[in-house]
Amino acid sequence: MEITVMKNIMGANEQKADELRALLKKNKVLMVNLIGSPGAGKTTILENTVGALRKKGYKVAVIEGDVATDRDAKRLQRFDIPITLINTDGACHLEALSIEASLNGFDLNDLDIVFIENVGNLVCPAEFDIGEHAKIAVCSVTEGDDKPSKYPLLFREAGAVILNKTDLEQYTNFNRKGFMEDIKNLNGNIPMFEMASMKNPDMEPWVQWLEKKFQAVRA
Amino acid sequence: MEITVMKNIMGANEQKADELRALLKKNKVLMVNLIGSPGAGKTTILENTVGALRKKGYKVAVIEGDVATDRDAKRLQRFDIPITLINTDGACHLEALSIEASLNGFDLNDLDIVFIENVGNLVCPAEFDIGEHAKIAVCSVTEGDDKPSKYPLLFREAGAVILNKTDLEQYTNFNRKGFMEDIKNLNGNIPMFEMASMKNPDMEPWVQWLEKKFQAVRA
Repeated sequence: MEITVMKNIMGANEQKADELRALLKKNKVLMVNLIGSPGAGKTTILENTVGALRKKGYKVAVIEGDVATDRDAKRLQRFDIPITLINTDGACHLEALSIEASLNGFDLNDLDIVFIENVGNLVCPAEFDIGEHAKIAVCSVTEGDDKPSKYPLLFREAGAVILNKTDLEQYTNFNRKGFMEDIKNLNGNIPMFEMASMKNPDMEPWVQWLEKKFQAVRA
Repeated sequence: MEITVMKNIMGANEQKADELRALLKKNKVLMVNLIGSPGAGKTTILENTVGALRKKGYKVAVIEGDVATDRDAKRLQRFDIPITLINTDGACHLEALSIEASLNGFDLNDLDIVFIENVGNLVCPAEFDIGEHAKIAVCSVTEGDDKPSKYPLLFREAGAVILNKTDLEQYTNFNRKGFMEDIKNLNGNIPMFEMASMKNPDMEPWVQWLEKKFQAVRA
């Protein structure tokens, strides 16, 4: 019986996700969903990404998912962009229904790219289609090289991988070759962007990837 | 309707957890549940802990919870101790029912301490009582100082906190004062153990805490 109920929930979520993609298409807005462990650096990456895109003239908005607190949302306030905070109050992932409420609060006509920072969690958020055009798997060298093999679903579902905190790699036993091989086995030649998000990283390859994705939505 | 089902699951889980605690009490076995983000260092801490306890003559066993792979279980094989691997096949936490099956596979009469390494996840495992005597919140300085406030349930439920990777603290912007204050606000004077789990850490304070817990179960 539990399984039936769960299937219904998943079905309703997927239907809503499709509706959201149609809404985004109509408004020619790209939506990207950042997923990673707590402390992988998602918010810092977002700060750098939003800064770089704003310099290029893009109009961006952010949906912040957090179990509790408005700490991440506050870090993004300085950009003077639309931000919606979803406090899940204990829940471990975002669903399409809450994304719909957030999108309805934005003026989509006046936006190019919406970023979602999902709840810090490598497991559950990967299971939910929330209408995004791409899931981005965010991981950091300090978490170790075994994350793709141990949490395969996200890396299979992702449209790109960000490997963060590479400036700390020299102090760890991170096995880069093993990490790359595991990702390749899970998801072929998925694009990977390296960052040291606290140390003025080169955002250009990642930003160009986003621009290309945006052009595809715009076309 | 979904809420009702969830309540039933939770109720059944809690009843099973109580049964497991009774079983452990009968056999005078301590059970400790390690919870933390992917890559916080749980397995390395376990390796060091098992090594230190074995030197002192304790008989230990490990239940390894992983979404996929047997990588963590394999790392513990060199200790020649009973190990059970629970592959959750996508599920984000362990439940009492699967712990029961694991405990039934051990000769509890011949054990002192059972360690559970939960699925790498700061959110969901904190919600489930799986019969343990204490949950241990494992976090690392490289995850940032904001984890207690952003994932409060685990830190409220925990019997102790391990702060890991302190050897990397100098390369981060980890705000130790803020971290300590947040933990104090959530859980008073909860014991905290600092480790640099890859760098021959001093395990003695943590091991002594475990020994004290074990004596309480033994009494």
